[in-house]
Amino acid sequence: MKRLNSVEAMRSFRRELEGEVGLVPTMGYLHEGHLSLIRKAVEENDHVVVSLFVNPAQFGPAEDLDKYPRDLERDARLCAEEGVQALFVPATEEIYPEGYQTYIEVTRLTQYLCGLSRPTHFRGVCTIVAKLFQLVRPGKAYFGLKDYQQFKVIERMVKDLHFPVEVIPCPIIREEDGLAMSSRNKYLSDKGRKEALVLRKTLNKARDALKKGVRSARELERIMEESVRSVPSARLDYARVADAETLEPFEGDINPGGTLFALAVYVEETRLIDNMVWSNGQ
Amino acid sequence: MKRLNSVEAMRSFRRELEGEVGLVPTMGYLHEGHLSLIRKAVEENDHVVVSLFVNPAQFGPAEDLDKYPRDLERDARLCAEEGVQALFVPATEEIYPEGYQTYIEVTRLTQYLCGLSRPTHFRGVCTIVAKLFQLVRPGKAYFGLKDYQQFKVIERMVKDLHFPVEVIPCPIIREEDGLAMSSRNKYLSDKGRKEALVLRKTLNKARDALKKGVRSARELERIMEESVRSVPSARLDYARVADAETLEPFEGDINPGGTLFALAVYVEETRLIDNMVWSNGQ
Repeated sequence: MKRLNSVEAMRSFRRELEGEVGLVPTMGYLHEGHLSLIRKAVEENDHVVVSLFVNPAQFGPAEDLDKYPRDLERDARLCAEEGVQALFVPATEEIYPEGYQTYIEVTRLTQYLCGLSRPTHFRGVCTIVAKLFQLVRPGKAYFGLKDYQQFKVIERMVKDLHFPVEVIPCPIIREEDGLAMSSRNKYLSDKGRKEALVLRKTLNKARDALKKGVRSARELERIMEESVRSVPSARLDYARVADAETLEPFEGDINPGGTLFALAVYVEETRLIDNMVWSNGQ
Repeated sequence: MKRLNSVEAMRSFRRELEGEVGLVPTMGYLHEGHLSLIRKAVEENDHVVVSLFVNPAQFGPAEDLDKYPRDLERDARLCAEEGVQALFVPATEEIYPEGYQTYIEVTRLTQYLCGLSRPTHFRGVCTIVAKLFQLVRPGKAYFGLKDYQQFKVIERMVKDLHFPVEVIPCPIIREEDGLAMSSRNKYLSDKGRKEALVLRKTLNKARDALKKGVRSARELERIMEESVRSVPSARLDYARVADAETLEPFEGDINPGGTLFALAVYVEETRLIDNMVWSNGQ
């Protein structure tokens, strides 16, 4: 496996590639969630590039950019073991050089959910993903559905800007006890790790209510909020029921054809997210 | 010459092309300025695509989108005569379909000059140019320097987003009496057409002052403002002296290495722009 540490190295590596190229964009500190994306990419493409870049533009000023966990050597070993051809690890100064000033915004899908708590987050995500698409020129790019809103925003950007890339959604991968995998889970103490199960349990309570026939968006959100409040140390950011395509809230009943149940909860100092999509009774 | 009226037609035409592709993005109603770009593109590339799209996203709500002059048959004939391979004329509904919501912003270069009078203009320009770059995938794209700020903004976007395109600046083409060519000149009455010479005369006055050794930005702007005011029916939008790279204004003296003299003036109802760059005494 090649390690590409500059834009020019990435460009000249790409120039020599023929056949289908798959891209898995990551911020590193890989877990089984990332590996599931990488395995799918290896299966579906002739060549796979994994990018590893902790993107400052998608962190807010009070967020965890500086302490975001890193372990490049372990990440490189894992990628090599999975059959990845190249690990692209550009320097921040090359991605955002002095004078940098171009950003991509998806204006409506970002007005909800995480977009409200993290106002410049998706602009940062779109910008880095667009840059990676130009440098890696993948036919397919793989994104995990734990970041459901991120997937929808990128899907929209790709469509709107005519990027010749297929964006592939990949299912949430969970720990045995149900906690969605995240590099940020590492921040949790043993106690926090147990409390973090409240996210999964809350989604299960929403599902139970759906099975009992509850369809009112307000009532479903109330059930989720109550569930999060049952763990006093957890702090709710949001518990929302939204249209799975537009991410818009509902006035009355949910959309039986596709409804997103989305949660963001602080456990200790760590902001965790999880979600499920309910569609035609599933 | 092919006429391509849809995104899919453009894509499949492009798929078959080998060799160097040049793009000349236009809003149609072609004049000698456009033709100079097209000729350069024909000279430098194996295939040339001219796009013709009056882009709603770059017009403000009170601007001239609806009355912008159009003459597709004449434009097509001119392109064919110059040896253009394809004229790409997409429908507005395909470029901005229902649900469209992605925009590209260059944040600092757009804070000056036309960016102040037309706050969403460059966002619209960047977005359409990025879309055309994805669909046409040119190696080179040609832009006229009458829209100097537009050129700098696109140059920055291309660099920042790593678009694999060389943006080529082309000199301003003028009528015999000095008026910079523009599709909007058509709006002028005979009287307005004569008054419009004030732009070129004002730039000449700034040049005369430079030759006499004037270097104060404020004094040079004062000279330009006075010159525009000498035509009572002309209404000044701006007369600015700015750094030719950053477009920032000067505190004191101008930059001898590269200074932009930029003008926007309403003549009758028509907003006209012109500029010159002064660099190392030239």
